[in-house]
Order: sequence, then structure tokens, then C-alpha cells
Amino acid sequence: MIISIIGGTDGLGKWFARFLKNKGFDVVVTGRDTIKGKKVEKEIGVRYTNNNIEASKIGDIVMVAVPINITEKVIKEIAPYVRENCVLMDITSIKEIPARAMERYAKDGVCVIPTHPMFGPSTPSLKRQVVILTPSEKHKNNPWFDKIKMFLEKEGARVIVIPPEKHDRIMGVVQGLTHYAYIALGATLKDLNINIKESRKYASPIYELMLNIIARIIGQNPYLYADIQMHNPQIKHIHETFIKECNTIKQIVEKKDRESFAEIMKEAAKHFGNETIRGMNYSNKAVGAITEEIERIKKSIGKEIGLRHVYSNKVHFGIVKNVVDDFIILNKNGKDLKLNIANVMLMSNEELKEWKEQNLKKYYYDISILFKKEINLDIILKLLNCMFDIEIIDIYEGSNVKNGFKSVTFRIYSYKKDDLKILKKSFLEVIKNIGGINRYN
Amino acid sequence: MIISIIGGTDGLGKWFARFLKNKGFDVVVTGRDTIKGKKVEKEIGVRYTNNNIEASKIGDIVMVAVPINITEKVIKEIAPYVRENCVLMDITSIKEIPARAMERYAKDGVCVIPTHPMFGPSTPSLKRQVVILTPSEKHKNNPWFDKIKMFLEKEGARVIVIPPEKHDRIMGVVQGLTHYAYIALGATLKDLNINIKESRKYASPIYELMLNIIARIIGQNPYLYADIQMHNPQIKHIHETFIKECNTIKQIVEKKDRESFAEIMKEAAKHFGNETIRGMNYSNKAVGAITEEIERIKKSIGKEIGLRHVYSNKVHFGIVKNVVDDFIILNKNGKDLKLNIANVMLMSNEELKEWKEQNLKKYYYDISILFKKEINLDIILKLLNCMFDIEIIDIYEGSNVKNGFKSVTFRIYSYKKDDLKILKKSFLEVIKNIGGINRYN
Repeated sequence: MIISIIGGTDGLGKWFARFLKNKGFDVVVTGRDTIKGKKVEKEIGVRYTNNNIEASKIGDIVMVAVPINITEKVIKEIAPYVRENCVLMDITSIKEIPARAMERYAKDGVCVIPTHPMFGPSTPSLKRQVVILTPSEKHKNNPWFDKIKMFLEKEGARVIVIPPEKHDRIMGVVQGLTHYAYIALGATLKDLNINIKESRKYASPIYELMLNIIARIIGQNPYLYADIQMHNPQIKHIHETFIKECNTIKQIVEKKDRESFAEIMKEAAKHFGNETIRGMNYSNKAVGAITEEIERIKKSIGKEIGLRHVYSNKVHFGIVKNVVDDFIILNKNGKDLKLNIANVMLMSNEELKEWKEQNLKKYYYDISILFKKEINLDIILKLLNCMFDIEIIDIYEGSNVKNGFKSVTFRIYSYKKDDLKILKKSFLEVIKNIGGINRYN
Repeated sequence: MIISIIGGTDGLGKWFARFLKNKGFDVVVTGRDTIKGKKVEKEIGVRYTNNNIEASKIGDIVMVAVPINITEKVIKEIAPYVRENCVLMDITSIKEIPARAMERYAKDGVCVIPTHPMFGPSTPSLKRQVVILTPSEKHKNNPWFDKIKMFLEKEGARVIVIPPEKHDRIMGVVQGLTHYAYIALGATLKDLNINIKESRKYASPIYELMLNIIARIIGQNPYLYADIQMHNPQIKHIHETFIKECNTIKQIVEKKDRESFAEIMKEAAKHFGNETIRGMNYSNKAVGAITEEIERIKKSIGKEIGLRHVYSNKVHFGIVKNVVDDFIILNKNGKDLKLNIANVMLMSNEELKEWKEQNLKKYYYDISILFKKEINLDIILKLLNCMFDIEIIDIYEGSNVKNGFKSVTFRIYSYKKDDLKILKKSFLEVIKNIGGINRYN
């Protein structure tokens, strides 16, 4: 199956290109900039073309991932070339305009699925991410729709299906107000000439979390954020309401009117209802998670840990040498690695074990041991497995083995070839103490 | 040592009462409400009096923890009664006013330490929490100052020492602007009549984080927040700057001026500098931490886990039966326990083990095993420790033991008394297979 991503050399389009390629799909991306296109081709192993129409002709699924302000134009250009029984979808943050355009310009028999993935390109996976689909009734009955919905859900996304109009109304708050407030906060900190790094020293957990969110938002593509504000008809009213509240509180503070101030907070808390407690607890978790993690890493000095990069998912493992400020010093094969805590996530022991199992080459050494016939090998293996990565590959009783004994061949594994000799030696030492005899010695 | 907390029946004063009591100090709390005082006395095991002056006379450390708007008045009332060579401190969020009052009304020879703990009463411990101390040069040289600073640091706090004026200037932004913006956001969501719970369904991770922070702030004591806004001379300028930025962005959006919008975001990002990347990564972590945790708990179905309550630090452990929406079903001794994920934090296996070691009663059974004299008991113990919680309490060689053998007495532990019989049986089964003999059988 070919998935063509129109505008797949950047942002969320590129994110989907990488994600779908990793899932085993044949992915074609387009983009105006040929140099960038070639780079993406190399970087994530997809095919690149600068011809949107060609890409639309060959795609079984055609995904429009261009900026909001040119989405309508691009849909008009490519929709007629999408083949019947194929899928046309977009992934912009507004839904009324692209939904209308796709319905209008695509052939009958093309399944139209306007889509809004509610996350940015720095999100590591689809797990627990919200994806909103806004197809019309006709397209909801197309088998493609279920197929795509199920794929997203299998990958851990929470899929919501609503009409495009409802989507745009809700997003005015969920995205519009959120971005607006944090961008204004970022601009205010600049205006007040606050030294961000120094201010963090005095930070309460909540101020630090606020700085992180401001940073996350102002660090994104500003044109995307501009378009989200500018193409939503609800946004004017939302802006005005927010500014009105800011002015009200400002005046109350000037008048030192404690009761009115308390009233505003109480009324808001009342409106939040049960969500107040829930949010307090979750914010504790968000704050606590980072504290806990650092404590755990500090406790692991001298032990092996695994750290997964929050963005790339790349895994680093090694012995923790030290934790200094925001940095972890990890010793991997005698070499020191300095990792910023902000960028990595501590893996559990089980996860690291599983990851090694799947990603590292294992070496092994086979060795045959004689045990008395009546010995229960399940118990022996269970005990040995605590000290060694080991399995039994053969059990032999017969003429070549001395009477009353059985020969058990163990395979000892190691991720380091050089360690096999030492492992063999300590294995034989253990065996000697539990009644086993080296068969060929 | 007696620590008297003036206004210790509520909020952060009560938090310190509980914390210091748990650390083994003799704590006295005061408060106007006798019924509440008696309740606190029972709840956390401290002494209560409604007499501020008595409490100030007996305290080696006297901590003023009353609301900001009466702090100056209370200091004037009690400071003269604090004994020489003792400590007078306050824990309000502003520092110039209380610092001046304490210096003025305390006796010579009293060590004055104006203090601002940068956290709220829902924080579980001092770990990584910022505490600001603003003593004058004279008091910095008092031995009490080092003693208190070192205590806080030992408990994991990050202690900062600055003059009270600098404190108030920085806090105008760190607390003033932060609270202001989130309270205005909460009021706006109420004004727009947004159904918070429903809106979460459509939430991007950042909107959800924002809701959690709003909830955390509007759920606190509104009078404290009013006072923080109202007693800071910088706040007016900060409010005005923020409202100005909001208006500017609003107008740019109305004019659909993409370039100017982008310019504001880019300038703010430039001002943040390296902090932009850092913040993006940390916000990923804050978002990812919750996702990761739920995945880990889901993977543990059928296994034992430990969950620590984010606020009370109470530990629950048991077999995970299921995870449904926001709830974990834990089976503890045959009884189902339903826990909200928001309220608990997954412990690592090592932490749970350590916690059990410290908090649960252990039962044991002693059993003597004969091993050949030459057997290395370190190896035997290492192997057995993987399957059993066990130690060697005696090794005996002599006339009562058959020739060429030694008698080794093991102590097998269990948190469940009823399990000891089963453990003994499976222990003997294992022993039989590694060459040991039950001595008294």
C-alpha cells in the first residue's frame, strides 16, 4: 500500500512519513524544496517527488499536510487525481474549510477523511494522543474509514469522530485560547526583560511548568500557530473574554479588594467542579514525575540503567557514574556519556532487559554438565537464571554418559563476547557447588 | 527542641507542623479556632494552644505562618516574647514587610530568618523544592542560620539566600504573573461556559496540562493568592505589560497579519534562547511521564506493584487486576482496591521492596541443612536469595554433625505468616536438588 503525503518534508507531515515508514508502509512525500526533499528521502528512507499530482495519482492513501493557509488551494489542485476506492485526507488543525474542499473536488468513490491529529511533531508516539476525524455520514460508511480508525486505535490513539463545525468550535478554546495565552506570556517575559534561566532558580514547580509550556509553544512553527488563530471564526470572542477577565482582576488587585478576588477564584473552582481536585493531583504528578525520576537515577549510582531519549526514542545504557545539576554521567564500555535529564526518560529494569533482547547481538557458549538422573532441572534452571542469562538446549541420557547421570547442555549468553570466558568460569564454580560435573573435563 | 508554629493549624503552617513532627521535633501549633486546633492536635500528634504569646515564649524556633495581611500585626504582637538565642522566622510569600517587622520587634540576640518556601501544602516533601531565605548580614553570621540552612538542604531543598528586596522583585513575575494569568484563564473558561470534563476529551497534551495548572491554582486558598498580588509594588506594571501583549496579539490576529504574529513568537523564542529547547523537552517529559506510567501499569497486569499516594505518601500494593480509564484495580489479599491514577505514583520494584522491609512485619522459620564441608555457602545463598527471602544465621561443624558435613541454619522470611509452611516445603524441594540434606529429618 502506498501512502502519499503532500507536504511531507516538514512538521507533522514529516512526522507521519517517519511513523508510517517505521510501521512498514511504502511512503511517498512531496514538497516544493527539492534539496530538503532529497534530505528527507535519505533521512527516513521514503521516496520523494516534487510533483503533487503524480504523488496523488499513485497513493492509495493521499494525506494533505501543507500549511493551513494553502490547504484549500492544494486540495483543489490534487483532489481530482486521487483514484476511486482510495482515500483523501488532510491533517490541518481546522476542519470546516478542508472538509468542504475535499468533498467538492474529489471524485465520487474516493473516501474523504478530514483529520486533526491533536499533537505536534515532537511527540514520540501515538500513544494516548487524541486524533479527531470529521467525515460526513457517507464516508463514515466506507470500509476505509473503519480501517483507518482501527489502525490509529491499535497504535494507542484516542480517536474522536465529530462533525467539522463542532470541531472548529471546540478548538477555538482548546488550541486558540491556550496558544494565545502562552504566546502573550512569552512576549511579556521578553518585554519585562526577565532572565529566564536565572528566574528558574527561584521557581516554584508551577512557574517552571509554565516556562516549559511557553517554551514548547513559542518553539513551534509560528505560521501554523498564526493560521490556527486566524482561521477560526470564534477566536475574536475568546480573545475579548480573556482580556476582559485580565482587566477585571487587575482592577480588583489595585483596589486591594480581597473578597472580590477570592470570589473570582472560587467561582472558577466551582465551575471546574471535580476537575479541580483531578487537575491538582495530575499537576502534582507532572511535577513529581521529574523529581522522582532524578531521585531514582541518583540511587542508581554504580548500577546499570537504561535511558530513552524523549524525542528520538534512542536508548542509552550504562553504569551511572554521577548526577550533576541537569546532567547524568553514564559509563558505557569505559567511555563517559553526558546526558541532559531533560532529554531522556529512565527505563525500568524490565524495559531495558526487553530492549536489549530485541536490539543487541547476543553471543553464547555451550557447555555440558552431568547431573544425577533424579535432579529436577526446572529448579536448577530457575536458580541459575538469577545469576546467568542461560537456557538448556539439550538433555541426553545414554551409553556415553556414566550410569545414574544425565548430560545437560547449557547455552550461556552475553551481550559482550569478551565476557563469555569469565562467565564460563563463574558458571562452573557455581555448578561445582550444586552437584554438577563438567562432562568434558 | 521545641518548634512553635504561630498559625500552624492550616495551610503551609500545618504542612510544616506535620513535616517537623515526622522528623522527630517537639511541635507546638497555635490558631484562633480551638476546635480546629484540637483536631490538628489529634491528627498529627502535635501540641495546640490558642495563646500565641505562650507559644512564642517556649519555642526554640518560632515560625510565623499566618496570612500575609496579618503577618506584620502578629509579628509585632509576639516578637518581643521570643527568647534570646532562639530563632524567629516567618514563611510568607513576601519578604520586605515581615523582614523589617521582625528586625524591629525582636530582642537583640534573637536570630531573625525571613523565609519563603516556594511550594504549597499539597507538595509531598522538601525534595527539590526551592526555599528562599532573606536574613540580614548580622543574622547570617548567627550559628542558627547555618543550622537551619543545612537542615533544609539535607532534606533535599534547594536553598537560596538573597536580600528581601530582590526577593520581592523576582516574585512579582515568578508568582505574581503566573497566578494572574492562570486565574484569568480559569475565569475565562467559566465565562465561556466551557464544560471542562468534556473539553478534556479533545485535549492536546498542552491544553490538559494547562487545565491541570489552572485547577491547581484556583483550588488553593484564594486569600493567600489575593495577598501575593496585592502586597507587591511591582505587580501593576506586570499586569499592564501582559494586557498590552494580549491586545497586540489580538489586533494582529484580526488583521490576519501572519508575519507580525510570527515575529512575536520568534522574538519570544529568541529571548528564551537555550531555554526554549530545554522547556520543550521538559514539557515532553511532563506529558510523557503520565503516558509511560499508565503503560507500565498496564504491562503489570497479573503482577504485584506498589503505588504511592502523591499527597499522603501512603503506599498501596497488590496484584494489578485491570486498568480502566483513570482507575487501577488492585487486588490485595483477595480484596479489590480501586485507585485513581491521578492520585498515585508507580513505585519501582526496588522501592516497593525497600518500603516493605521498613514498614511490614516479617515472620520467619528456621531450618538446618547439611552441606558437604567444601561447599561455598556464598554461592548457595546467592542462588537461594533469588527464590526466597532468606539468610544464614548459623554454621556449625562438630561432633553432632556427620563427618565431612557442616550444618547450616537458614532463616526463611515471609510477610504472610500463613505462607511459611508452603515456603518451607518448596525450600526443601530446592535444597534436595542442590545437594543439601534436611538435618532433623
